[in-house]
Amino acid sequence: MTSPNNYFSNRKTIRKYSDREVSPEMIERIVGLAAKAPTCGNMQLYTVIVSRTPEEISAMAPLHFNQPAATGAKAILTICADFNRFTRWCQLRNADAAYDNLLSFTSAMTDAVILAQQIVTIAEMEGLGSCYLGTVTYNAPKISELLELPELVVPVAALSLGYPAEDGTETERLPVEAVLHSGKYRKDSDEEILEFFKVKEEYPANLGFPAENGKENLAQVFAEVRYPRGLNESVSADLRDYLKQQKFL
Amino acid sequence: MTSPNNYFSNRKTIRKYSDREVSPEMIERIVGLAAKAPTCGNMQLYTVIVSRTPEEISAMAPLHFNQPAATGAKAILTICADFNRFTRWCQLRNADAAYDNLLSFTSAMTDAVILAQQIVTIAEMEGLGSCYLGTVTYNAPKISELLELPELVVPVAALSLGYPAEDGTETERLPVEAVLHSGKYRKDSDEEILEFFKVKEEYPANLGFPAENGKENLAQVFAEVRYPRGLNESVSADLRDYLKQQKFL
Repeated sequence: MTSPNNYFSNRKTIRKYSDREVSPEMIERIVGLAAKAPTCGNMQLYTVIVSRTPEEISAMAPLHFNQPAATGAKAILTICADFNRFTRWCQLRNADAAYDNLLSFTSAMTDAVILAQQIVTIAEMEGLGSCYLGTVTYNAPKISELLELPELVVPVAALSLGYPAEDGTETERLPVEAVLHSGKYRKDSDEEILEFFKVKEEYPANLGFPAENGKENLAQVFAEVRYPRGLNESVSADLRDYLKQQKFL
Repeated sequence: MTSPNNYFSNRKTIRKYSDREVSPEMIERIVGLAAKAPTCGNMQLYTVIVSRTPEEISAMAPLHFNQPAATGAKAILTICADFNRFTRWCQLRNADAAYDNLLSFTSAMTDAVILAQQIVTIAEMEGLGSCYLGTVTYNAPKISELLELPELVVPVAALSLGYPAEDGTETERLPVEAVLHSGKYRKDSDEEILEFFKVKEEYPANLGFPAENGKENLAQVFAEVRYPRGLNESVSADLRDYLKQQKFL
């Protein structure tokens, strides 16, 4: 494993992977270690489903819009918020399980995302590259169908894994004071907000985006091209229906 | 920092802290490093609010039911899903921001929990002890009031931090095959489910819980004492109202 300090300050997302396989044994070891991460009441409200064979990857990649990090992945891990297993245990033990509600969803989602990030850290420290596939939420109902998820199980994170075939690109971050407040939520002025986002607006790799997208500035690229109103609202409506179907709402 | 492999296999939650302070500089350094973790579209949809003075800790601890990990914390970090800062930037740049919806909440919550877990890992590798305060969801509306959270900001994780004054207790985990499925969601039989949970039912530290709580078995302790129907349902209703108030629903 790499040195922690060096790792945390230099980590980069990797979207291109070499031909080298990621073995089932390696995945099992990483997930086993990651499961030592904190979990709500030690209930372990998550399940990881591994797509690893070429057939499994080919079936999953379109649900991530065939982005190269998905089509070229050596493994895709779909990490699900899961109150099904725990509920079944309770029912088998004649206990009154009531986990078909919003609190149970947020508890299980928190558990699942903690696990996902622990997997990322361990995998990357062991030399693998990884990339979150944010598309997991956009296509949650279809992914759910493909993976045959039962009630009280919802995919909340997806990770592609493989040995790096690129260095990865450094990306800018807001100054730490933008995201770290003391005592109360700080009421930043308009000028302060604009000052924080300068690091994004003036970042060399971002400079071309407004013109390429026919927009005036980077904020419009985010709000009107990448994550626009219509898409956000239709995905939200589908997600709400899907959470109802899975009995969390 | 400790060696990674050793750290991941031995990590424990720490709820008792020594008198040694955790400096604002240390917190800023840890949060700055943690912010290199993956984030949705590099939008950094989170804010960390630090309670560190005795007055701030005393005001916050009751909202975590005065659990010792809160009253004795050297710092409590409330990690919020935050689409407010990003939305303000968009508005200041005349971009049509539409982040008052469920998708935006789950995106920001994912970002916030990834950050929280990265903070845990870095802090613990640097010798601090930490504990998630799951109570953050139970009292989200009151915590929100105390911290003066604006619209599109919701607390989703809380961490207590300090230098360890205890070794921490090892806790059992399900066998890795229980949480790791291959290809599809595996349809475990009732016998398999019961077999997985044996590790909890037979774990020495858990053996006394049923009798202490007047219950027949451990599942009933979880479902009827620790996380019972009435509480789950009332917290879920409050949480739904609160998410509406914050404009995410």
